[in-house]
Amino acid sequence: MKSTPPSIQRLVREFNKLPGIGSKTSERFVFHLLRQPKEEIEALANRLLEIKENVQLCHHCYTFAEEDLCSICADSTRDKRMVCVVAEPKDVMAFENTDQFSGTYHVLGGVINASIGIGPQHLRVDELVARISADSVTEVIIGTNPDMEGETTALYIAQQLEPTGVVVTKIARGLPTGANIEFADESTLGNALAGRRSITKE
Amino acid sequence: MKSTPPSIQRLVREFNKLPGIGSKTSERFVFHLLRQPKEEIEALANRLLEIKENVQLCHHCYTFAEEDLCSICADSTRDKRMVCVVAEPKDVMAFENTDQFSGTYHVLGGVINASIGIGPQHLRVDELVARISADSVTEVIIGTNPDMEGETTALYIAQQLEPTGVVVTKIARGLPTGANIEFADESTLGNALAGRRSITKE
Repeated sequence: MKSTPPSIQRLVREFNKLPGIGSKTSERFVFHLLRQPKEEIEALANRLLEIKENVQLCHHCYTFAEEDLCSICADSTRDKRMVCVVAEPKDVMAFENTDQFSGTYHVLGGVINASIGIGPQHLRVDELVARISADSVTEVIIGTNPDMEGETTALYIAQQLEPTGVVVTKIARGLPTGANIEFADESTLGNALAGRRSITKE
Repeated sequence: MKSTPPSIQRLVREFNKLPGIGSKTSERFVFHLLRQPKEEIEALANRLLEIKENVQLCHHCYTFAEEDLCSICADSTRDKRMVCVVAEPKDVMAFENTDQFSGTYHVLGGVINASIGIGPQHLRVDELVARISADSVTEVIIGTNPDMEGETTALYIAQQLEPTGVVVTKIARGLPTGANIEFADESTLGNALAGRRSITKE
């Protein structure tokens, strides 16, 4: 990189900070961009400045938004009494992509993880408790990942919500679509058995 | 992505254009950046604008440069009479990283590839021929890839340079460092045999 123009070296170092991007891939990005019309490079730069300027957290549910309220919280047809609690804004996108949920969300901003020093006080739990009465919430669906941290967080939130009397549920554990029973791990198959549902009733 | 702020969707689409980056990785980049301080996003945007403004092609060898001449052509200690011909600016970087070459370069801007419509007229061959007498070049080392297109290009350039009487060489084909003879392909091992060198002489 010695003879490489300094501005190229600086951009390589910036791309290098992106998750999973090593210096070879980073160089490939830069040489790719340098082969494009200059407008392409400018477009990427402007889109970056755009998210820097425009993206904030929704004042109500804390997902990403361009206004004080995100498009979900601002939508009067969404059921405010049903709240799905997730760890990160990207989880909101995943649930929205299912087209199966007409309620609203609450983004915690992480999960309890003692190993990296994240305790309940770092999550937006008080804000969730406040929403229960403010929005007359009837059901809180906890949609954290089915791992140690996600389950710990789910349990903690359920305890915190107990005094409010709201119904607290969590999303089902079981076999993912397309899975093979032969290769499913014991925990997944155990959860699938425990969470079995009647097929005659539906 | 429906409920995702439009500025996030637009940035995801821009990252998606980078080589080897699908929409999932692109989303990961954006959510990663949104977790960083805003200065980080601005830094990446500014570095992009910087290469857009500052990077041009060296007027002499056509690699990337920030001035009219690249740092190699502007260096009076580099031997102008020895020219290494490469396909792309990134190949200049690779040769420079070896610390084994004190001459200069000439970037063709591609290789002959009939399947995508790139003929000799699309490469900077006339500019190379002009340099032979202008710089009193004594040796041209062809450093194209050891594949069909690279070899075709090397042969074409050797033919074009024949009337000038300059010595034309090409970089050695053989076993890469750390290779295993047992698993080397016939072509590589054949080239290694044909290109054998005396070990008593050195």
